[in-house]
Amino acid sequence: MAQGTLRDFTFGIAMNLSAEWITGFVDGEGCFHVGVARHEDMKAGVQVLPEFTIVQHERDVQLLHAIKAYFGCGVVRKNHGDRMAYRVRDHRHLMEHIVPFFAEHPLRTRKRVDFEKFRRVVLLMDAGDHLNEEGLEKIRQIASQMNRGASR
Amino acid sequence: MAQGTLRDFTFGIAMNLSAEWITGFVDGEGCFHVGVARHEDMKAGVQVLPEFTIVQHERDVQLLHAIKAYFGCGVVRKNHGDRMAYRVRDHRHLMEHIVPFFAEHPLRTRKRVDFEKFRRVVLLMDAGDHLNEEGLEKIRQIASQMNRGASR
Repeated sequence: MAQGTLRDFTFGIAMNLSAEWITGFVDGEGCFHVGVARHEDMKAGVQVLPEFTIVQHERDVQLLHAIKAYFGCGVVRKNHGDRMAYRVRDHRHLMEHIVPFFAEHPLRTRKRVDFEKFRRVVLLMDAGDHLNEEGLEKIRQIASQMNRGASR
Repeated sequence: MAQGTLRDFTFGIAMNLSAEWITGFVDGEGCFHVGVARHEDMKAGVQVLPEFTIVQHERDVQLLHAIKAYFGCGVVRKNHGDRMAYRVRDHRHLMEHIVPFFAEHPLRTRKRVDFEKFRRVVLLMDAGDHLNEEGLEKIRQIASQMNRGASR
């Protein structure tokens, strides 16, 4: 196979993503994270920031755009150095796209445990529990148990 | 869902791997490498060592065993520290299991370019080209262009 043909073929299939491929790739490269930050402007004084990210070398930025198109939400932005990140932070996008997808297509690594915690936080926030002290404490506890021994 | 139930469920599905999940996971975590080492005992004085590896935290060792079962070849061994590695080095296993799999199920990241080079080396070795100087030089050139800007 000629080099040119191979290159075209590689980029052609980059757009042809399946749910199972996405699940495998996220088992390797995805990150479910819940940030908890002090924020003077907020009612409870604390901001809860769940985010789903996939970081890749910039040579695979087209793949990140294909993943964004697949989920129908999120942004692709520069990360650090030669790294690009696909990122979803919007609550409705997490509730309606990301969380249902990984509930339906279960991860196979122990990252699934992080996802389950991430899902609990997003559901608590959907119920407005991040706006009262009891709910916030629950979220803080869940967040503190996430991403231990992460794969990177 | 109770913690125990979640754990059982996670390990249950760990064994249920699909070709697309494997492809996505290897796009993230797999490595196609060709080692070229001086070796006094060898006819040409040089040993060519293609190997396919997936390294994971030891907490996911069961998944590496499931991948080994899926491919029907390779070994799971300790890597560094708390890391375990699934590894395939045997020429027949690479020729009959690994190379045909990724030829049929194309990777979506630029790691596909590494796989194509890896495949060329395995096919050259299958033809015995690693036993003459001209073939070895070709393999050395291919190997020197692999794993540049790898994802880790």
